[in-house]
Amino acid sequence: MSGRSKRKSTEPASAKSVPQAVVSRLSYYLRELQHLLRQGVQTISSSQLGQRLGFTDAQVRKDLAYFGQFGYPGIGYRCQELAEAIRRILGTDQQWAVALVGVGHLGQALLGYKGFTQQGFVFHAAFDVNPRVIGKQIEGIPIYSLDRLPEVIRSHKIRLGIIAVPASAAQGVADRLVEAGIQGILNFAPVTITVPPQVSLVGVDLAMELEQLSFSVLHRQQDAGK
Amino acid sequence: MSGRSKRKSTEPASAKSVPQAVVSRLSYYLRELQHLLRQGVQTISSSQLGQRLGFTDAQVRKDLAYFGQFGYPGIGYRCQELAEAIRRILGTDQQWAVALVGVGHLGQALLGYKGFTQQGFVFHAAFDVNPRVIGKQIEGIPIYSLDRLPEVIRSHKIRLGIIAVPASAAQGVADRLVEAGIQGILNFAPVTITVPPQVSLVGVDLAMELEQLSFSVLHRQQDAGK
Repeated sequence: MSGRSKRKSTEPASAKSVPQAVVSRLSYYLRELQHLLRQGVQTISSSQLGQRLGFTDAQVRKDLAYFGQFGYPGIGYRCQELAEAIRRILGTDQQWAVALVGVGHLGQALLGYKGFTQQGFVFHAAFDVNPRVIGKQIEGIPIYSLDRLPEVIRSHKIRLGIIAVPASAAQGVADRLVEAGIQGILNFAPVTITVPPQVSLVGVDLAMELEQLSFSVLHRQQDAGK
Repeated sequence: MSGRSKRKSTEPASAKSVPQAVVSRLSYYLRELQHLLRQGVQTISSSQLGQRLGFTDAQVRKDLAYFGQFGYPGIGYRCQELAEAIRRILGTDQQWAVALVGVGHLGQALLGYKGFTQQGFVFHAAFDVNPRVIGKQIEGIPIYSLDRLPEVIRSHKIRLGIIAVPASAAQGVADRLVEAGIQGILNFAPVTITVPPQVSLVGVDLAMELEQLSFSVLHRQQDAGK
């Protein structure tokens, strides 16, 4: 609310100094801007953008200030320009070669997930230990034996790996991906894994989505009962 | 930063006035508090909690102020007490009966997802149109014909529905769930669906998780190249 407390930043911050929650909010800003653009909205203020997402205007400005100056005095943000800037920051303005490890039910669902391709994430290979799937293709993606992981990762210049194996196998797979030179891992296995500091790691917690839902149902009911 | 701009709230806000992003942050606060408790940490200040998640202390206090007063002067928050309060607010201190619609790959993966049960979300039934799975059990959950949805939802007092069907079928399934009296829907289908205002709806966007990863990889590399 007060402009005085706003932290000024003239240079983009280095990756280590940007908290993960800020990056998560960038995805929300991007989705909202894409939604606004589809509605024909050209410009938006930090307080309007924040209001739509439940952030303070100071939080919006602070988040974006990590990466540069995007607002125009008296105008706010230009939606198209800010959306493109956020895509550059998130890296979704380029294509990412992705490998999947674990072609069980979750893995097969992920291979067919349209949302990944839309944002520039393209599967090049999948790996499993099950001889019944090795050598086949799913959604056009070849399934290799896990033993061939280092070779395939390197030859296809794959940068990101998705782990969709049982919890007990997840750390072993992460170690193999790291050895093969992968740069980032998205872990769907419900277990905490560790990777060396030069490798990025994001864990997925689907229960958080259900928590949002139970909250909404619970408080809606309480309101209705008043 | 300034205590003066803090919005004071003595009564819990109604559901409609709490933005979804605030509820999302509650899940993050809860995970962080559970992590701190496992490390034996008893109390934490709003600025420490915010710092660990990349929020301002004002944002933390504002978020929690929607639901009451949780801090103690000179102490901060008591981790155990705040974690329990957030579980009550999110509704994960109680059990929720959940139905799944769509027993394809994603559906079968969700039926086996341990994280749901840990937070109190328990599958009671699953539905599909495929005669090869109807009448069977997966992970101990009975699979019913979609035609029996209203009857089973009512007899099992199921409150939440998860949609894991192809995009083209998602709105039709949502309509059936609403008619059967479901209170909330978690939609994994990559399409926007609409429900009446008395029903809660949360959409899952798995690409957001990959965006966090590409950001991290990209900026780590840029740092390394400096």
